[in-house]
Amino acid sequence: MNYIVKDENSIYYECGFSADNALFLKLGSESFFITDSRYTVEAQELVKGATVLINGDLYAEARTLIKKSKIKKISYDPKEWNLFAFEMLKKDLKINFKEVPNFSHKKRVLKSSEELLLLKKAVKLGAKAFDDLSVLIKKHGFKQDENMLTFMGKAMLSQKGKYELSFDPIMAVNENAAKPHALPTSKKLKNNDLLLVDAGLKYKRYCSDRTRTVSASNDFEFAYNQKFKKKKIQKAYDLVLKAHDNAINKARSGMKAKKIDAFTRDIIEKGGMAEYYVHSTGHGVGLDIHEMPYISAKSEMQVEDGMVYTIEPGIYIPGEFGIRIEDMVAMENGRAVVL
Amino acid sequence: MNYIVKDENSIYYECGFSADNALFLKLGSESFFITDSRYTVEAQELVKGATVLINGDLYAEARTLIKKSKIKKISYDPKEWNLFAFEMLKKDLKINFKEVPNFSHKKRVLKSSEELLLLKKAVKLGAKAFDDLSVLIKKHGFKQDENMLTFMGKAMLSQKGKYELSFDPIMAVNENAAKPHALPTSKKLKNNDLLLVDAGLKYKRYCSDRTRTVSASNDFEFAYNQKFKKKKIQKAYDLVLKAHDNAINKARSGMKAKKIDAFTRDIIEKGGMAEYYVHSTGHGVGLDIHEMPYISAKSEMQVEDGMVYTIEPGIYIPGEFGIRIEDMVAMENGRAVVL
Repeated sequence: MNYIVKDENSIYYECGFSADNALFLKLGSESFFITDSRYTVEAQELVKGATVLINGDLYAEARTLIKKSKIKKISYDPKEWNLFAFEMLKKDLKINFKEVPNFSHKKRVLKSSEELLLLKKAVKLGAKAFDDLSVLIKKHGFKQDENMLTFMGKAMLSQKGKYELSFDPIMAVNENAAKPHALPTSKKLKNNDLLLVDAGLKYKRYCSDRTRTVSASNDFEFAYNQKFKKKKIQKAYDLVLKAHDNAINKARSGMKAKKIDAFTRDIIEKGGMAEYYVHSTGHGVGLDIHEMPYISAKSEMQVEDGMVYTIEPGIYIPGEFGIRIEDMVAMENGRAVVL
Repeated sequence: MNYIVKDENSIYYECGFSADNALFLKLGSESFFITDSRYTVEAQELVKGATVLINGDLYAEARTLIKKSKIKKISYDPKEWNLFAFEMLKKDLKINFKEVPNFSHKKRVLKSSEELLLLKKAVKLGAKAFDDLSVLIKKHGFKQDENMLTFMGKAMLSQKGKYELSFDPIMAVNENAAKPHALPTSKKLKNNDLLLVDAGLKYKRYCSDRTRTVSASNDFEFAYNQKFKKKKIQKAYDLVLKAHDNAINKARSGMKAKKIDAFTRDIIEKGGMAEYYVHSTGHGVGLDIHEMPYISAKSEMQVEDGMVYTIEPGIYIPGEFGIRIEDMVAMENGRAVVL
């Protein structure tokens, strides 16, 4: 099968290196990595199993290779190519471009044992960062604002610069947590406030992702067991945790993803808070923070052993508070195992 | 003029807010910002001059608006749209989609006085970070590896988390600096080594960008004046600095960008090192770290008052060393003023 990939993680998956200006081509039995002269040294050192070619015009180089190979059909992912770049690639080529949405994500949906080890390590480091952050927050007392909490979180997650983050962490207090993708503000954390932390890091490019919602009280800890002063918050929290546990306990290999989504949604619906659960149950995680399988009410994808995804139900009441509890699971021996 | 933009910075430029899943449409005299329910609260707070619409299917919402407006033509940037998203948008629409490459970048190439102030502030904060970093490096002695230098640099640039970075900073020692986009390694900085630092931060989303190449000696400082022990390095350094100064002194509004590129390239060519100058002279900077105008040997764009771009010639000798000196300039009253 002939194919061309352009996304950085897709390229990395093929040959162990990538850059912000690169292409990877598989033409019959031959593989090629094309980049520009800024990356010559690193590409020659790090690319595995592919011929490295340096050309300021990646597309011209790709066309030359395609013509030389005499292939008639090549697969590509329409999500990886902007309209402009694709025109630059095609130009005078007369071959058949076969559109395969999520080409690389589909290849990557079943994780190898090596990838699972990297993901487990990422999750372990991520969990440690949450523990380190809770110690730091307690040490300083509940008085930091979201900006400072975000900085402290980044320092713990990155282990002072050693690791990249999966995404900008979310640190949201009380009503700010009602924004599922909240940006940090100068709002301060105080005693008995609610704090939502959604964060992850990359270990050898593989992502972790975790959310905890906690009460800023004496026994402050990023644990499942939380006691909130306000009854409405406690009720919502217990419901989210129940939904989270229900999906993890009942997910089985062979099920459709939408069935797993229903395991969280049904619980929150029965609790009368369906209108405040504004997103899907989860998403796959790997080299990308969002990849297949998507665990949503519409997803017909069959979940299988070797898939890794998040379970992250939530309840968001605008102007009041937000709650989300998220873990990454791997399907192993037919069941969801929390990483 | 009717248009639709999809890129985050392009959307921010139109209405003062953006998100990772959003669209902005200008249909006649009306403006619309579409995003999903994760961003409801923030969009309603922060979007200016546009109607906020929440829909999990951005494209369906956009199609409804376009049909209702009865417009016949809409402009879009083919670089902002991947093939998949564009198909999702078009579906059953019968209107004329007018391809305008760099649509938003073209709108943004002349900076307003307000934008210039933000860019100047970003550059000032970036320069301060270089100073802070030099103090920190001297304090610790020359013994840190590139990974640690990168962490120290990030802490100084972000002012401990207050500011976002324009890009992952480059901190490269000796032969690693020969890779124009070097990734940090465990290579340690020692006395009399060469250190290249390329870094910037964002102030209210506007980017700074600066490179200095320095000698790790007693009077360690990110200054233009540098003394290297090795004659070959000193010769190359002096040539790069001369090329940098030449372009800044001779650039005039009304000139083609390729003429400004020649002001650096000619000097390095005359010095006999043309083969080691593997990139263009510079690039525009604004909301994006790379935008118009591009200062390259092929660029026919006319440089005008109000444009902001980098001058960053370099010499890279693989396996030996690399040198780059970069400043941001604004065209003001016909000349290039270093920010």
